[in-house]
Amino acid sequence: MEAIRYELIKKDERTGARLGKLHTPHGTIDTPVFMPVGTQATVKAMTPDELKSIGAQIILSNTYHLYLRPGEKLVEKAGGLHNFMNWDRAILTDSGGFQVFSLSELRDIKEEGVTFKSHIDGSKHFISPEKAIEIENALGADIIMAFDECPPYPADYDYTKNSLYRTIRWAERCKKTHKNTEKQALFGIIQGGMFKDLRQEAVKEMIKLDFPGYSVGGLSIGEPKPIMYDVLDWTTPLMPEDKPRYLMGVGSPDCLIEGVIRGIDMFDCVLQTRIARNGTVFTSKGKLVVRNAEYAEDFRPLDEECDCYTCRNYSRAYIRHLLKAQEILGARLTTIHNLRFTIRLMEKIREAIMQDSLLEFRDEFYAKFGYNNN
Amino acid sequence: MEAIRYELIKKDERTGARLGKLHTPHGTIDTPVFMPVGTQATVKAMTPDELKSIGAQIILSNTYHLYLRPGEKLVEKAGGLHNFMNWDRAILTDSGGFQVFSLSELRDIKEEGVTFKSHIDGSKHFISPEKAIEIENALGADIIMAFDECPPYPADYDYTKNSLYRTIRWAERCKKTHKNTEKQALFGIIQGGMFKDLRQEAVKEMIKLDFPGYSVGGLSIGEPKPIMYDVLDWTTPLMPEDKPRYLMGVGSPDCLIEGVIRGIDMFDCVLQTRIARNGTVFTSKGKLVVRNAEYAEDFRPLDEECDCYTCRNYSRAYIRHLLKAQEILGARLTTIHNLRFTIRLMEKIREAIMQDSLLEFRDEFYAKFGYNNN
Repeated sequence: MEAIRYELIKKDERTGARLGKLHTPHGTIDTPVFMPVGTQATVKAMTPDELKSIGAQIILSNTYHLYLRPGEKLVEKAGGLHNFMNWDRAILTDSGGFQVFSLSELRDIKEEGVTFKSHIDGSKHFISPEKAIEIENALGADIIMAFDECPPYPADYDYTKNSLYRTIRWAERCKKTHKNTEKQALFGIIQGGMFKDLRQEAVKEMIKLDFPGYSVGGLSIGEPKPIMYDVLDWTTPLMPEDKPRYLMGVGSPDCLIEGVIRGIDMFDCVLQTRIARNGTVFTSKGKLVVRNAEYAEDFRPLDEECDCYTCRNYSRAYIRHLLKAQEILGARLTTIHNLRFTIRLMEKIREAIMQDSLLEFRDEFYAKFGYNNN
Repeated sequence: MEAIRYELIKKDERTGARLGKLHTPHGTIDTPVFMPVGTQATVKAMTPDELKSIGAQIILSNTYHLYLRPGEKLVEKAGGLHNFMNWDRAILTDSGGFQVFSLSELRDIKEEGVTFKSHIDGSKHFISPEKAIEIENALGADIIMAFDECPPYPADYDYTKNSLYRTIRWAERCKKTHKNTEKQALFGIIQGGMFKDLRQEAVKEMIKLDFPGYSVGGLSIGEPKPIMYDVLDWTTPLMPEDKPRYLMGVGSPDCLIEGVIRGIDMFDCVLQTRIARNGTVFTSKGKLVVRNAEYAEDFRPLDEECDCYTCRNYSRAYIRHLLKAQEILGARLTTIHNLRFTIRLMEKIREAIMQDSLLEFRDEFYAKFGYNNN
């Protein structure tokens, strides 16, 4: 039996949106879902209890980081990632591919795998598809990702094509290596850059390998948003209906809505937590840079419509003071708010799909948020 | 009516220890009590809710810091410090004296007050006893401290004596300035350095001014612990029994126990939170530097006897990983633990006084903690 099962609850009649449930060894997830990112076995500034209290159902953790520190063997000895970090809901680990290509130094890509230097101490490492799966097996997440190459943006057609076929061969090797299919579901990653035929080819080839879920990779890497939406339009209609679809590394409010409309079920992004620590928050009326001087004596909550702990208890003036004074509580309060804002957005999106009002919800959200989708 | 009232519950027959209740406008505090320090209107890394969950009854905040940032007028506009920081239990503010002398630059002490440069931006400021009380009135803490000079250690007899008499004159001016006595209790500070006659003189003169509480200042500034204990032995027996006694800036576990034995009711210290962020924690078996490599694969809690959130849920290995990876959660977990350890120590001390077993408790604690009091 596969570790996970996707249950399609409802298809939106006017868009590609799907309402579903994803059953995992660590609970059932309502989709479309946003996954907070816990890069180093912790969602920055948050406890697992706080994540639960804001409605997080699944988090993502980064294989590249955990492999380098503290090492997957330590995590395995601790009883796996859930135990190690005290999180008993679902976890997804990426394969490390993206970070090897974006964070590490002096990488050397061969058919066998990738040699790279650690961004922490410059030490030399080699990760192959087999090695990536071994690491992910040791970490023990509910959903694990195949090792892939994410070409930079822009990349030319030939590079992208070669890379794509290698990613498909790597996916096959990942599948062969992965034995623990009853506890961990291995997803295939669809690459192909910004080229329609390559994306379509990628979907077809990946589907042949029959993974329990598929992600769309290689997006949100610098391309204009309309291109991202085009890629989704080319890709998701070809993906099987009975499997979850995950758009990697995407997460601004508008991209979440547009992704859902194009049939995506799962998202992750560091944006929410990263901008929070720098003093920027999402509100129902758009972004707010609470560090700015104009909020020094503003005793309103970050977002008057928000139900989060931060908005129920603290003022913009206080949060600004904390951020200016470099107090940890400042980062905590803005992080709680941004994650809750995003998770609540997903709740509203699911509700809108249920009520057949997703497009109306989108228009109202954009009008209020101050986002022009045209 | 005075803002606070000290209720003596029990005197220990074999030591100077007292069990009491301190009634304040924001709740009744069991004494002896440890006050976590919230320098910049936040106990570093903690929410007010977390402070309550570990049993904090009163916190301290620093007038010097709040005056410089965000400014006492902003805090007053926010409805006072309790409102500003979302803490509805008791607060004590110091007078800023200690920080003016220890943190700021180019201070110039005159009878009228002290001119100094901000440690944040070098701007020039003047604080007099009257100004300090104005600031503390604006902040609105339940207990406020008179503006004093804390001479450095070591300081000679003549300097200490002159400084002491100025501190007494300043205390008188503070008392004259402070009108809000029904909501805020003003404590006098006993200085006098490490000289017996000056300390005794200081107590006598301060008592004449009839404050609702008194603190012993100028200790834990570099002097050997036996000297600190001597000063307490000279001082507390002369202090009125119906008023609370506060030992400023003291807080290591042994000093808390020794202070209680010498008749102290209130303590504050940044030690717990500061060493926590650097990866050192108190345990029932002594200090533990959880950052050390020896704990890399240690899956036990920080302290197997501790009841805190950290010890109930996380391993030394995980906490070490978080600290090495500079994750905020690491500082949060160690801070929760160190504060809970200290508050629980005070609970045990109160219980021991109640059971007439304080000296036995001390000996057992030291034996286990690995502390030699001789």
